[in-house]
Amino acid sequence: MRAEVITIGDELLIGQVVDTNSAWIAERLNEQGIELYQVTSVHDEREHIIAALNEAFGRADIVLTTGGLGPTKDDITKHVLCEYFDTHLIEDARVREHIMQLYSARPDVLNRLTATQWLVPECAEILENRVGSAPLMIFHKGAKILASMPGVPYEMKIAMEEQILPYIGRQRTQIIHKTLQVTGIPESALAIILEDFETSLPSSVHLAYLPKDGIIRLRLSAYGGQTDKEMDALFAELKSLVADYCIAETDDPIEVLVGNKLKELGKTIATAESCTGGKLAALLNKHAGSSAFYYGSIISYDNSVKEHLLDVPAETIKARGVVSEEVVIQMANAVRRQIGTDYSIATSGIAGPTGGTKEKPVGTVWIAWSTPEGTTAECFQLGKLREQITDRACTKALIGMLERIRGLED
Amino acid sequence: MRAEVITIGDELLIGQVVDTNSAWIAERLNEQGIELYQVTSVHDEREHIIAALNEAFGRADIVLTTGGLGPTKDDITKHVLCEYFDTHLIEDARVREHIMQLYSARPDVLNRLTATQWLVPECAEILENRVGSAPLMIFHKGAKILASMPGVPYEMKIAMEEQILPYIGRQRTQIIHKTLQVTGIPESALAIILEDFETSLPSSVHLAYLPKDGIIRLRLSAYGGQTDKEMDALFAELKSLVADYCIAETDDPIEVLVGNKLKELGKTIATAESCTGGKLAALLNKHAGSSAFYYGSIISYDNSVKEHLLDVPAETIKARGVVSEEVVIQMANAVRRQIGTDYSIATSGIAGPTGGTKEKPVGTVWIAWSTPEGTTAECFQLGKLREQITDRACTKALIGMLERIRGLED
Repeated sequence: MRAEVITIGDELLIGQVVDTNSAWIAERLNEQGIELYQVTSVHDEREHIIAALNEAFGRADIVLTTGGLGPTKDDITKHVLCEYFDTHLIEDARVREHIMQLYSARPDVLNRLTATQWLVPECAEILENRVGSAPLMIFHKGAKILASMPGVPYEMKIAMEEQILPYIGRQRTQIIHKTLQVTGIPESALAIILEDFETSLPSSVHLAYLPKDGIIRLRLSAYGGQTDKEMDALFAELKSLVADYCIAETDDPIEVLVGNKLKELGKTIATAESCTGGKLAALLNKHAGSSAFYYGSIISYDNSVKEHLLDVPAETIKARGVVSEEVVIQMANAVRRQIGTDYSIATSGIAGPTGGTKEKPVGTVWIAWSTPEGTTAECFQLGKLREQITDRACTKALIGMLERIRGLED
Repeated sequence: MRAEVITIGDELLIGQVVDTNSAWIAERLNEQGIELYQVTSVHDEREHIIAALNEAFGRADIVLTTGGLGPTKDDITKHVLCEYFDTHLIEDARVREHIMQLYSARPDVLNRLTATQWLVPECAEILENRVGSAPLMIFHKGAKILASMPGVPYEMKIAMEEQILPYIGRQRTQIIHKTLQVTGIPESALAIILEDFETSLPSSVHLAYLPKDGIIRLRLSAYGGQTDKEMDALFAELKSLVADYCIAETDDPIEVLVGNKLKELGKTIATAESCTGGKLAALLNKHAGSSAFYYGSIISYDNSVKEHLLDVPAETIKARGVVSEEVVIQMANAVRRQIGTDYSIATSGIAGPTGGTKEKPVGTVWIAWSTPEGTTAECFQLGKLREQITDRACTKALIGMLERIRGLED
């Protein structure tokens, strides 16, 4: 069973909005054993939407559309779907009731444009959009279906999880993905180690390399025909081949690996950040449950903050520079003591675009890790672009922390 | 002149990677007056790529592909392009030299898989990929062109800016976008205010509503035919209609608006974050030049940090709760004093999924702003999902700060 996604909205095609919906939908569909064959982004434009619908129905059994369902003039998806499925709009009393309740505390939202939201295509099945005013619509085309959802990510996610996925139901074709993560080896060297393994794989099993910020994810995918047991055996073989570099046998992001390990051990962490500017703290707090292991951070962008809140002596900054082993070790020690945690991480580097020197070019980052066994630091060269440098610094900081926590366990 | 983007990679269609490239490319193309008509994401699969190429060339003059250029077996773009353009691979001495230099300090990367990177399609024009091993390839199909780039965002961006965009050159059709941002009014109420204006617009001018986290961007776009002067007049009319709600006459994100205002005034800021956990600090530091106005932050996720580093009395937390006006005001005052800045922002809320009560459900967030004139706070209900709540809290915090800084100027 194949699905396709059509994301509708000019904002996607002029770069005003990044399409995060498709990746999320892809993951959910895969979990249900439904292959997502293609994603297509089109304009809020009648002819373009109709062409995309025709093409998608030519390839897929399920077509999911996002976007274009607002009450304003630029949103035309509902009208185009009416035309495509040769139907017309009628008032839906349940949707009307839902919208009245949704905005009961905000009468300023209830106006004649909002009222167009309870007009629905006569031939469509209507599912409730619990958190918004645009109803979810299911259309049938022979044995195929189309589901239309809002483009706002929060609304789309709730719609998919509570309504659309249960509607589609669990399908028969089973797709299995298994991922492990390695670090400390170039992609091409890894591929040489795995060459014979790859050649020996059945034709319906596929190995993919996904490098990002110094971690390479190896994803083994079976598109039908394999049993769980057969996949387990192939995955075990893969693991044994890359054991020296493997940091995880799951697809969990590095911040989740660190968080889970800390929770498992009942330990806590703090960060002292200069160049990463809060990104590392935000990453550690991204997922629910972080209050169990994350206590706090001191973000010391300015040197005065390093001196006053992290007790870095002004002389050390003067003698060694603010991006130095001495400074970053002092930052890690001070924040661990001040916040009272088991572990801490500190970063200091040159994120650019200015501030680089010949000795310490843009991309130079010192990272320190403090544990009950002591504090150590390492220097990295992490590229040339601000976002790249700070992303990679966070990943390096978390890999280093994970290795040290695991080292102390042994 | 129309372009299309084809993003190639299984990882995009199983949800392992979010496609951030397309939005970035869209923005760059629009700046050059090139309309991006469609984005299509396809699998690393011969037939699928060929079908997408045929469709894209049927609609567009320029086809840009990203991804599938690595040295590993799962990457097949180069081979499929050879087949599509009926050519074969030859060795390219310049690319070989470039790759040798690129990896001169890392001999472990130079192996026989890396060596496949300097094989290029005979009919393609080869442009230098300064930061990676996969050469950039330009193919011609009559008057149309195809440019193939790596999928790694950093490499793709440098390739586009330094090579592909200059190659494509400045085209004639001028697309003009003008954006302003409003807050404090529902989308549908805004649309009623703007109804006559929208109806009066020429057919080639389009108004779009882009709501996100409490800010609605209004984008006025002209697709050919309008002069700058005519667009300026329409934009001025739009501005006057929404003057009461307008917070910016540009497309700059809210953190940039705050940063620019602080730089203009020579003022500084700090944050004390509980529920936002560093996200606000990271946002203020996202863009280059933040060291001019951002000094530091104290992230106090755990109550002990609020007590010890932000001087919040344990009795206040006990009496009022940690998510309260008193606590958040104390946090804002303490961080402004400790870090020594002109302004500060503090957040404390319930990001969920647990921790909510009947009086303070998940989504309750207190935000305080401290200025030389005093400290004030406001309570918000920001939704039900962790990411939504923390994103909206950051936006509310920054809108509130911008309004207060501007208020002090008057």
